[in-house]
Amino acid sequence: MERNRLFTKISGILHGGDYNPEQWLDRPDILDKDIAYMRDAHINTVTLGVFSWAVHEPTEGNINLDWLAAIIEKLYSNNIYTVLATPSGARPAWLDEKYPSAMRSDEMGVRNHHGLRHNHCMQSPEYREKVRIIDTALAKRFAGNPAILMWHISNELGGYCYCDTCRKKFQEWLADRYDNDIEKLNKAWWTTFWSHKFNSFDQIDPPYSNGENCVLGLNLDWKRFNTWSATDFMKFEIDTLRENGATEPTTTNFMEMFMDYDYHYMSKFIDVISWDNYPELHNNWQSDADTMLERSFNHALFRSMKPGQPFMMMESAPGVVNWRPYNKYRRPGVHKLISMQAIATGSDTVQYFQIRKGRGSSEQYHGAVIDHIGTNDTRIFKEVASLGDDLNHISEITGSVSDNKVAILFDWDNRWAIDDAWALAKDTKNYDKTCMEIYNEFMSFGIEPDIISSDMDWSNYKIICAPMLYLLHDGIGDKIADFIGEGGQFMATYFTGYVDKSCLNWLGGFPGDGLHNIFGLRSEEIDTLYPEDVVNIRIRHKTGFTYHSAAVRDYQELLRDVTADVLARYDNDYMAGTPAITRNQFEKGYAYYVACRTNQDDIEFLYREMLDRAEIPYSKLPAGIEKHTRFANDIRYDFYLNCTDKPVCISKINGFELISCTSVDGKLHLDKYGVAVIKN
Amino acid sequence: MERNRLFTKISGILHGGDYNPEQWLDRPDILDKDIAYMRDAHINTVTLGVFSWAVHEPTEGNINLDWLAAIIEKLYSNNIYTVLATPSGARPAWLDEKYPSAMRSDEMGVRNHHGLRHNHCMQSPEYREKVRIIDTALAKRFAGNPAILMWHISNELGGYCYCDTCRKKFQEWLADRYDNDIEKLNKAWWTTFWSHKFNSFDQIDPPYSNGENCVLGLNLDWKRFNTWSATDFMKFEIDTLRENGATEPTTTNFMEMFMDYDYHYMSKFIDVISWDNYPELHNNWQSDADTMLERSFNHALFRSMKPGQPFMMMESAPGVVNWRPYNKYRRPGVHKLISMQAIATGSDTVQYFQIRKGRGSSEQYHGAVIDHIGTNDTRIFKEVASLGDDLNHISEITGSVSDNKVAILFDWDNRWAIDDAWALAKDTKNYDKTCMEIYNEFMSFGIEPDIISSDMDWSNYKIICAPMLYLLHDGIGDKIADFIGEGGQFMATYFTGYVDKSCLNWLGGFPGDGLHNIFGLRSEEIDTLYPEDVVNIRIRHKTGFTYHSAAVRDYQELLRDVTADVLARYDNDYMAGTPAITRNQFEKGYAYYVACRTNQDDIEFLYREMLDRAEIPYSKLPAGIEKHTRFANDIRYDFYLNCTDKPVCISKINGFELISCTSVDGKLHLDKYGVAVIKN
Amino acid sequence: MERNRLFTKISGILHGGDYNPEQWLDRPDILDKDIAYMRDAHINTVTLGVFSWAVHEPTEGNINLDWLAAIIEKLYSNNIYTVLATPSGARPAWLDEKYPSAMRSDEMGVRNHHGLRHNHCMQSPEYREKVRIIDTALAKRFAGNPAILMWHISNELGGYCYCDTCRKKFQEWLADRYDNDIEKLNKAWWTTFWSHKFNSFDQIDPPYSNGENCVLGLNLDWKRFNTWSATDFMKFEIDTLRENGATEPTTTNFMEMFMDYDYHYMSKFIDVISWDNYPELHNNWQSDADTMLERSFNHALFRSMKPGQPFMMMESAPGVVNWRPYNKYRRPGVHKLISMQAIATGSDTVQYFQIRKGRGSSEQYHGAVIDHIGTNDTRIFKEVASLGDDLNHISEITGSVSDNKVAILFDWDNRWAIDDAWALAKDTKNYDKTCMEIYNEFMSFGIEPDIISSDMDWSNYKIICAPMLYLLHDGIGDKIADFIGEGGQFMATYFTGYVDKSCLNWLGGFPGDGLHNIFGLRSEEIDTLYPEDVVNIRIRHKTGFTYHSAAVRDYQELLRDVTADVLARYDNDYMAGTPAITRNQFEKGYAYYVACRTNQDDIEFLYREMLDRAEIPYSKLPAGIEKHTRFANDIRYDFYLNCTDKPVCISKINGFELISCTSVDGKLHLDKYGVAVIKN
Repeated sequence: MERNRLFTKISGILHGGDYNPEQWLDRPDILDKDIAYMRDAHINTVTLGVFSWAVHEPTEGNINLDWLAAIIEKLYSNNIYTVLATPSGARPAWLDEKYPSAMRSDEMGVRNHHGLRHNHCMQSPEYREKVRIIDTALAKRFAGNPAILMWHISNELGGYCYCDTCRKKFQEWLADRYDNDIEKLNKAWWTTFWSHKFNSFDQIDPPYSNGENCVLGLNLDWKRFNTWSATDFMKFEIDTLRENGATEPTTTNFMEMFMDYDYHYMSKFIDVISWDNYPELHNNWQSDADTMLERSFNHALFRSMKPGQPFMMMESAPGVVNWRPYNKYRRPGVHKLISMQAIATGSDTVQYFQIRKGRGSSEQYHGAVIDHIGTNDTRIFKEVASLGDDLNHISEITGSVSDNKVAILFDWDNRWAIDDAWALAKDTKNYDKTCMEIYNEFMSFGIEPDIISSDMDWSNYKIICAPMLYLLHDGIGDKIADFIGEGGQFMATYFTGYVDKSCLNWLGGFPGDGLHNIFGLRSEEIDTLYPEDVVNIRIRHKTGFTYHSAAVRDYQELLRDVTADVLARYDNDYMAGTPAITRNQFEKGYAYYVACRTNQDDIEFLYREMLDRAEIPYSKLPAGIEKHTRFANDIRYDFYLNCTDKPVCISKINGFELISCTSVDGKLHLDKYGVAVIKN
Repeated sequence: MERNRLFTKISGILHGGDYNPEQWLDRPDILDKDIAYMRDAHINTVTLGVFSWAVHEPTEGNINLDWLAAIIEKLYSNNIYTVLATPSGARPAWLDEKYPSAMRSDEMGVRNHHGLRHNHCMQSPEYREKVRIIDTALAKRFAGNPAILMWHISNELGGYCYCDTCRKKFQEWLADRYDNDIEKLNKAWWTTFWSHKFNSFDQIDPPYSNGENCVLGLNLDWKRFNTWSATDFMKFEIDTLRENGATEPTTTNFMEMFMDYDYHYMSKFIDVISWDNYPELHNNWQSDADTMLERSFNHALFRSMKPGQPFMMMESAPGVVNWRPYNKYRRPGVHKLISMQAIATGSDTVQYFQIRKGRGSSEQYHGAVIDHIGTNDTRIFKEVASLGDDLNHISEITGSVSDNKVAILFDWDNRWAIDDAWALAKDTKNYDKTCMEIYNEFMSFGIEPDIISSDMDWSNYKIICAPMLYLLHDGIGDKIADFIGEGGQFMATYFTGYVDKSCLNWLGGFPGDGLHNIFGLRSEEIDTLYPEDVVNIRIRHKTGFTYHSAAVRDYQELLRDVTADVLARYDNDYMAGTPAITRNQFEKGYAYYVACRTNQDDIEFLYREMLDRAEIPYSKLPAGIEKHTRFANDIRYDFYLNCTDKPVCISKINGFELISCTSVDGKLHLDKYGVAVIKN
Repeated sequence: MERNRLFTKISGILHGGDYNPEQWLDRPDILDKDIAYMRDAHINTVTLGVFSWAVHEPTEGNINLDWLAAIIEKLYSNNIYTVLATPSGARPAWLDEKYPSAMRSDEMGVRNHHGLRHNHCMQSPEYREKVRIIDTALAKRFAGNPAILMWHISNELGGYCYCDTCRKKFQEWLADRYDNDIEKLNKAWWTTFWSHKFNSFDQIDPPYSNGENCVLGLNLDWKRFNTWSATDFMKFEIDTLRENGATEPTTTNFMEMFMDYDYHYMSKFIDVISWDNYPELHNNWQSDADTMLERSFNHALFRSMKPGQPFMMMESAPGVVNWRPYNKYRRPGVHKLISMQAIATGSDTVQYFQIRKGRGSSEQYHGAVIDHIGTNDTRIFKEVASLGDDLNHISEITGSVSDNKVAILFDWDNRWAIDDAWALAKDTKNYDKTCMEIYNEFMSFGIEPDIISSDMDWSNYKIICAPMLYLLHDGIGDKIADFIGEGGQFMATYFTGYVDKSCLNWLGGFPGDGLHNIFGLRSEEIDTLYPEDVVNIRIRHKTGFTYHSAAVRDYQELLRDVTADVLARYDNDYMAGTPAITRNQFEKGYAYYVACRTNQDDIEFLYREMLDRAEIPYSKLPAGIEKHTRFANDIRYDFYLNCTDKPVCISKINGFELISCTSVDGKLHLDKYGVAVIKN
């Protein structure tokens, strides 16, 4: 795998984060101290201007960026580069006062009052014009400035607007999608149901909370439209910058497994993927190791969006956040663990929100490198500085990338459709969690999967798991057939292939689009279990003479027309004796079907079988240990993370450990929350 | 009891349900297959047109019913009759677009957007005019058609509208109710409290959520008005059909113990009672037998609305529903149990929602006879077909009716008043549940009560239980006195006779309206217990020398002025030693008063005493068994339902079992979920 | 302490309550019976007119107060005095109909419909004008009437209005507060954050729920403005009465620890403090003794507002209330306990809501002296009458006052700021509860603290506890330094001194405003614990050689720069070994700092140390016993309340017991819920 650096201006790992000097313009002493402290902490980048519009342009048309230029220059002279944000994430009061159309409307179509962030209509022409003007000024002033690393578009784009402008845009978007043929839409949305037929596109409303919200095709298209709308807004900002001379790369900061927009779509229009990572450690519902695995899954999702290229961890919290039900400090050592996990999974940055805490408002207690006490000797500061030093030790990993052979299919359309489906149980659908449990099972074998979409290139993978692939994109049936046919291992589960891209059910038995032939079965019923229900399956051992049992949770499908090999059968309740897990050889590959929900540990044999058939070497790791690998040309970097508060020793590790600059020969000792980077 | 058939056109039990061919007009192959499958399943009726308005009248005034006529004809030629619905349950988009007044307004008076079902103002003149036009067209086209069994008015009428039209209508309705005398209303609503007096009827608002909602008389009259308004709308549709030649019977489908409207009032204006039955079996909070008893209570409620006449189970779900928190499939055999329970309790139909699943929207996973797989060999299809066969075996029960001697009083006014009362505890009032527990206790003795209103004819009954009869209709005191005086057994409980029909408290001690004389006591305090509180009563055994104890839950009244016989006393807490259960002889009958809430099993002695005095024979049934009886002239049909998943044997049963065509002589064996119909 | 009687017209304790004869004007027989019953119950006062506007002025301008004059006269001739209310608590229908501006707007700025109480805009000019007219008429008619004891302004003032009038008033109030300098406001609110800067005061909205609600300075100033607005309205009513001849004292009835308004501010503008006391006894989450201590804390809060002057318990419920989740009757004897607790803590009245139950609407089941049964022999009536007799026995305590040396600091600004802070955990901040736990610990030693504000005179106190004093008023740092410097004992805790009055963080380490010097430490981190987390501290015993352990809940601070004496250290988790409780001598006094949340019982040593140093004698009382003391010149009255349902005996009590008229010599026996008043 070829080394691929994100930036040419800077050679190592980026370390820094959001910085708001505009809050301290009357305190030059503090600004000076901040820069000194940043140097102490080995910080080499800051993100500026995220919420600076009211300082850039205090009254309409009165733009002055000198303050910003001076700060950028001063930072640069201290070897600190700037990620420069467009300020569209929050609007000045004068803008909303003069142009009320800029404000978002709620789910009943009622316009909000001024305030908060993310409270704007992305289709408002007046708002766009004001964004265009300020972005133009920023680009004209800073494009090509050697201190500027990249452009950060807006901030954590999110939310839906139900105003009349958006209603009209939605109608146009629909007319375009359905070839100006309302009957096509009526068919796709099955509107004959409940007399929901439309005569024309201009009759169609957004799914108001006090209007039409039972037409599932409408709901799904509304989410797609909003993805389009946010992307359209983002592209409008990028185009404005480009038209005014900006050549630096662009990004926008994504937010974990955010439901609002399809990030797979959005990611196509930016140069670099970045996301904001806020793990909730030491909580009262799961182990630290499980929390870290959730992070790891998210990193994998964002890494996989641009194969062969590192991503950025654009935000993370030094010490603590302040907006959770419980805001608990990270224990000593955990800052390093979280930061190194990002690097291990493919990030080339460790960035924070925020460098210094502001004195007021809702983020005054959000963790920062520099606290209200204003010193460089707090526990948190010292952990940040120590991490900065560690990053310098491993700077050679910059630009290295992953090369995984296992993937998990994860589509936004599918998430939305499952979430909106009137089926199963309200609170136990757990699509995301199901994907993560499969990810975790592979991780326990030292194998990290990529997280991919239906539409991506699958050619690098030998195993693909597509749990609960309820909604099938156009052509996915053939794509799966091709993948298996050419020798792939493909695992599907209950609730697969029920609907097409419009949420219309496939006729003739699930999974649809021809998949029942590939898997050699049809699903007749999907039964929902209460948490108290006790159902088991019996799994045939390889020898065929002994069995072991596994518990079924939440869902069980009744299969029929089964021509596949049966690996497990239901053991009790009304499906007793019928197939529960099957394997079907299809040309050169194998199609696995898990018809019920179990713990993945209980069906470990299936993972071993897939890995064996795919000829991928694996070995079980100690509990709580994560392993990730990055490659740079011929070099291989194995990261080992101890996500527990107990020391651990891992056998059969050899190579050079970069952080400590020591050789490892056989046994790798990791302290609690310890991290090692083994180079080979 | 005289046999009384609902329909002359068809001799046996109706089997069928809602069918939406308009969703498949482009798939004649599927429509043909559906009819073939219906015949396989012994289906002899379908309900058409429930949500077909947008197909009937795709644009305003452009009505074409040929598609419907063709389908009705084709079904008829296959011996399948049609229940024909008016389509007012959901409106076409063009209607709301042109006549916004048709859309309902919410509890703050804000008009909804277009969408959903049941989202119309029943008083909107524009909406009514459009309904009149389409209903007229339907009646002119199909009245007298031999294929048409009956008219189904709208669908599951429900909800309240707070628009200005309804506000005005409400004021007119109030002026009429209070003889155009605002002072009468002020007195009835006790408006001097909190300066709530009105100067004129046109000052009165509906109880907006952001307006006046503490005037209990207003709240209660608003519910009564909405009952009137929905009935007025329903009558308007019936009148329209009748004026245009329709002579077939009418119904509208009720929904269990629906709180919105007083079904006792509505039921007077339709020819046949029908309701939609959706039991939630195999759940995690009660046994199947308890779930079935709840259904049984509902059947009894609807049966009792038109004494001497069968009712219809207009909807039920083959297999599963899709809108519950947990949507669990019914286990094999349960479909028969649920369907036969309807017949046992007095229905002459087993009808489903729905014959075939639609491909899209919010009911795509609602159980159906024909599934997306499109075959006639699914488990569910086979159970439906088998049931169809069973129904043919017992077709002679058609038109048989009940003759019960025990009744439970259950008034909507009372439900509403208790629900709205600022008294007791918020979450443990449980009026409905209390009625059901009494019903269940009688059922355990093989005695099925009717469920009646204050205003019905009580002359057929020997025992009436009126738990928590908080609100007393005009004249009810005398009616109770007459019932007891002529030899009846009447049981009342705590929280009886507190208010009159306007929710004004009776003065001089509860129960009011003279009832304290009938019962020989007054209630001074009603105390509310927390779930953790431990209070007991001591019940005197018949001999008078021994006692047993029973736990009190939720409520206990402190009685005074007790002249009745004391059957039990409080055993601890501050009421210790005072009467808890009493019996007062009044002329030829007995008035029982249970001053606290207990398990009915714990006061079984009271049931035995009432049944003994009423000379009604009874015997305890095995747990989980329901017994129901229907009569046709001199023939008696006893239904035995095993509502458990264990086989059971019942002794002393003799007669001819209709389903299996075998004689039973002494012992009746029932499989799990098994059903028998014993003819004598 | 000098005796200080509230009223000259009446010599003993006031006994009576709210009375609504306007509901019974058509029943003179009932009105006559009521007065006879009041005399039976030793009632000497009623509160009239609270909700009588619609009777006073049935149509606009048509005012007739004769009915009221007649009733006042009749009561007076029976030695029953009147507390006369202005009727602004609820408006007649005609007023809202004609002047919609009188109706309040909700948090989105949407105007409510007519109805309820407390649903008016306190800044509406039209509403004020109507209030002025009716108040003028009342004052002109009744000022100086010998039957009138005092004026009761409106009723339970509460709530916020978000209408345009209030928005405008808020802007004016802000302009005044910030010297017409928008930059001052921008600084105080830290508006550079998220580009929230304002260009002018007229851009500022209230914190609409669908607008700006993350600017903490705005949120806090909005609460202050609403305190001002309600006070402004109250003063407007008082001024109106005064301008029209009223010279009697004024009050308004406060509501426990009500969050809406700063009662410390409001209390300055009325003559007498009164409040409404509704304990929830016999519940399922705490003991009766704990419930009573909560009441005691509230009494202390209201007593402390006007030092050296008795207060009034304006409302309390005979028997039961009707608006709680569970409405449970008070057990026999508890009515006396609750009433005597009010007297013990400094009230000179026992007043009820209500004398007689109304027949209808939402308070028809609220406890009353006279029930619907209409007799004077109910349990509740007899307990009220007995209490009336007891009050006559102790009438000499009237005008006696308290003289406490311990105080707990409790500021509304601090409550609001903590509540709104984005920090700690959402559900465990528990500021109020923390104050109460400290109160309870002192009470267990027989020491009753006063509850005071930052701004009051502290000179009478030797010990002040200021738990979680998160927000510091201007000058409070110096005030605390002075208090300690002159020999005071001052206890602070975690979360002290984080922000100034604008919610801006202090720089340089917490606690700010110089307090870190007084306490000899700085706080670096405040960590939030989950309920499941186990953290302990080790407390050094006086000898210095042994230790005991105490559990930490919810919060723990990491201290640094500690120069104070360390009394306890963290024993585990990441702060192990660092200081947890400290004591710092500062000039003549001591500053204690408790850096983590513990049970107060577990740090009892600290209370003993403070009391010892302050030379305040104390001795531990039996569990569940409250002791309160009132002084009149040289006489001392010790009240002992048994707040448990078991009898108890207390040693070393001597004096004359007033209720029973017996001498106590050594041992005081108290029945369950028993009360004694020992005079010395």
